Amino acid sequence: MEEKLFAEVFPCSEFGYIADMNKRLAVVIDVFRATSTMVTALANGCQSIIPVVTIEEALEARLQHTGALLGGERKALRIEGFDLGNSPFDYVPEKIGGKKIVMTTTNGTRAIKSVENAKHVWMASFLNIESIVHAIFRKLEKEKDIEGIVIVCAGTENRFDIPDTICSGMIVDKLGSDIKSNDLGRAAQMLYNISKNDLPKVLENSEHGQRLISLGLNKDLAYCSTLNILPIVPKLYKGEVVWKTDN
Amino acid sequence: MEEKLFAEVFPCSEFGYIADMNKRLAVVIDVFRATSTMVTALANGCQSIIPVVTIEEALEARLQHTGALLGGERKALRIEGFDLGNSPFDYVPEKIGGKKIVMTTTNGTRAIKSVENAKHVWMASFLNIESIVHAIFRKLEKEKDIEGIVIVCAGTENRFDIPDTICSGMIVDKLGSDIKSNDLGRAAQMLYNISKNDLPKVLENSEHGQRLISLGLNKDLAYCSTLNILPIVPKLYKGEVVWKTDN
Repeated sequence: MEEKLFAEVFPCSEFGYIADMNKRLAVVIDVFRATSTMVTALANGCQSIIPVVTIEEALEARLQHTGALLGGERKALRIEGFDLGNSPFDYVPEKIGGKKIVMTTTNGTRAIKSVENAKHVWMASFLNIESIVHAIFRKLEKEKDIEGIVIVCAGTENRFDIPDTICSGMIVDKLGSDIKSNDLGRAAQMLYNISKNDLPKVLENSEHGQRLISLGLNKDLAYCSTLNILPIVPKLYKGEVVWKTDN
Repeated sequence: MEEKLFAEVFPCSEFGYIADMNKRLAVVIDVFRATSTMVTALANGCQSIIPVVTIEEALEARLQHTGALLGGERKALRIEGFDLGNSPFDYVPEKIGGKKIVMTTTNGTRAIKSVENAKHVWMASFLNIESIVHAIFRKLEKEKDIEGIVIVCAGTENRFDIPDTICSGMIVDKLGSDIKSNDLGRAAQMLYNISKNDLPKVLENSEHGQRLISLGLNKDLAYCSTLNILPIVPKLYKGEVVWKTDN
């Protein structure tokens, strides 16, 4: 019997457990809001996003990339002196068209860095989830040496959160029963299945959802909870997140 | 409106996030098998269990406690030279009656150490879960200064696992809707509710369950999956886990 391919889900906090990342396809999820914002920014015509962990690294990266914008958040709010926050609504074509964006967020960019040694690093959100699943199937068909899929949930301040977990569970679910998962992947799949008919409400009731509401960011919450409006698969390529149509 | 009490669930890997542990009641869960084994050992008449993290600490602690037995595991197997493994079936009255046991396990004793500064530290498993829930209610009634309950899931090698998470979800569920939880607590509660009618099977299919089966430890698996057979609330008291009937 053929060995089943593994699709494992990890919270960012558990990282460092996986050997052979260079044989794996990593999918990073930060529904509220980093990966949702990256997908939106690429759809709106930005050239690339350079994810960095600290504000200092962001300032340094901008010096190296003339004309780049600075984006990101701390405690969900725009960083002082930065051009853009972490709201997808900041990343409109008029501001970001054709530009590079250096981005640092509390959870998302850290999660990307944690898997940067993977063979492929893609960014998922509810906005592009079907495209991600299709792209995974195509990639597994083309590259037979991929030994597993690693889905990293950025979580809220490195902690387990319901939105990213349910998003990961949706991916595991759509990958189908031919793919084995770990305990968190299967738990995520169960959580997705009992939440899918009431998804916006479940996301709204999550800790991060409630925090966005308390900050008046209801529009961001609703937008990031929307399924499949952007057919984009953002990929990390030489340290920058880009959208290339050839999978 | 009165503020709701928080009952938060954390995986061991996320620890270090909670301030004011001295105002909280901590409940440690390691279903497979450390807390199940501790509950059993106390039911079978051992005097106390001294949890330590490393094998070196275990050997040192035995020097300080004349007549103490050494118990624990690495990779689910008894440690060389130790008197007892981590199977509850090792902890029979003939061996452990009246004795102290120095214990080190991969997940459970580390989880206990991570919350040792809490006002109270109790050990839960499916074996004693109803007693734990009742004891929590009694304690909250008596000590009005307790600000929250922290449930720590030891997990498998510090990682999220389904058995501990479902056990924590059962506690959250039984605490009732007057108590607020965090995302992991509410996810755990959902997982418990969709698993409760098929609990032994769900636990068996978990990663840790499958590992126990691969080691021929089916009996341990079945025993540790049993609900409410031991009306015991093990408590950490001056560095030792004891069973005191006065709550």
